[in-house]
Amino acid sequence: MSKSKKRYSVIVAGGSGTRMKTVIAKQFLPLLDKPILSHTVEKFLSLPNNEVIAVLPEKDMIFWEEIITSNHTLSVAVESGKLKTVAGGETRYQSVSNGLAAISSEEGLVAIHDGVRPLVSIKKIEEAFSQAEIKGSAVLSVPLKDSARRIDGDKNEHIDRSKIVLIQTPQTFDLRLIKKAFSLGEQPFFTDDASVFEYAGHEVNLIEGDYENIKITTPEDLSVAEVLINYANNSSL
Amino acid sequence: MSKSKKRYSVIVAGGSGTRMKTVIAKQFLPLLDKPILSHTVEKFLSLPNNEVIAVLPEKDMIFWEEIITSNHTLSVAVESGKLKTVAGGETRYQSVSNGLAAISSEEGLVAIHDGVRPLVSIKKIEEAFSQAEIKGSAVLSVPLKDSARRIDGDKNEHIDRSKIVLIQTPQTFDLRLIKKAFSLGEQPFFTDDASVFEYAGHEVNLIEGDYENIKITTPEDLSVAEVLINYANNSSL
Repeated sequence: MSKSKKRYSVIVAGGSGTRMKTVIAKQFLPLLDKPILSHTVEKFLSLPNNEVIAVLPEKDMIFWEEIITSNHTLSVAVESGKLKTVAGGETRYQSVSNGLAAISSEEGLVAIHDGVRPLVSIKKIEEAFSQAEIKGSAVLSVPLKDSARRIDGDKNEHIDRSKIVLIQTPQTFDLRLIKKAFSLGEQPFFTDDASVFEYAGHEVNLIEGDYENIKITTPEDLSVAEVLINYANNSSL
Repeated sequence: MSKSKKRYSVIVAGGSGTRMKTVIAKQFLPLLDKPILSHTVEKFLSLPNNEVIAVLPEKDMIFWEEIITSNHTLSVAVESGKLKTVAGGETRYQSVSNGLAAISSEEGLVAIHDGVRPLVSIKKIEEAFSQAEIKGSAVLSVPLKDSARRIDGDKNEHIDRSKIVLIQTPQTFDLRLIKKAFSLGEQPFFTDDASVFEYAGHEVNLIEGDYENIKITTPEDLSVAEVLINYANNSSL
């Protein structure tokens, strides 16, 4: 059996907190005992063979350093070289590019993940890495629960919801392929890393995600996330 | 100013509870102090000028009668003729048809709503009725928060998420038009009432919904719903 490829994770935390109606950026809002971003980063650090690159706005760097200093797990990870932090760019695309640039190797796998999705399960991260190693990519997706309609100007029409999936993160890729894809330049229709990968001519491999892996963007989401964490803790007793 | 049209609401509660992994049908599961369905029906009863028709599986009728008996608001509504219950059919389409058939009038407006969406706001129900009175229909929809992809056999491709909306309930219609639409017979691609209305040749008028108006289909949803109710109660203090 061949040795697994080296694994990296780029955690993108670029939000400004506008939708949260808070001054503090949403990734730093407290979720139970610590900031959202700490939950997310710790989850990725808990995997063996995984180097984590956090990408944050330049202005938030000092605050993030303080969070690391007061968190034992994060501090140890920084000291041992398992956790690095780099400054983001103007757009999500540029932030991911900066994160990828911080990985000196060309060989390996990289999971790109939203900093405000702390509820992703370790099992799904592992599965994404394994599948990406075999197929070149592995992107978490979930079916639509609701009916959907397509908007076309003033009109709209029914669409077959079984043909649409919602995309989450992590989006995990062969490192060489995704670095190459990001070298082609930003396009206005990029909404995630899978669309960058696809634009470079690669097929995107979808794997099943979890509905619980929510993106925290509103105050309600934060309350929901707390419940889901408590729910998960109780279920595993 | 002309008098508003008579308003009806058909609350469809046909679920079997399979996804909930419970024996009790999901619409009867307790949400804080009472069954989910009681929350939903009470919300519609709180509007003036609104007659509510609950549609339930035949097998659940006795249990529902017991719930009504022990609930003052529901009991009073039954006595005053504001709340009726009819038996559903094999499919959602047939259940809605049965609900519509229980409305003897042809003139008016009808809001069709999922029994397991108790978090809909009274404001949105009112808005849906008002808009349907002007435009013939009013269907709640919310934009996609996540990226989306279209599945095509083994392949999949990026789609512009700004062109897709998720559909909720209530879906509110001119009574005559929707009765006529349901008289045309069931089609396999019907996933909601808007698709029935559209198939009859009418344009669907979308109005903005709320993300909080969730459909409770899993145990996690139930926990989330509790949080959202508490959140809404605290916000309005």
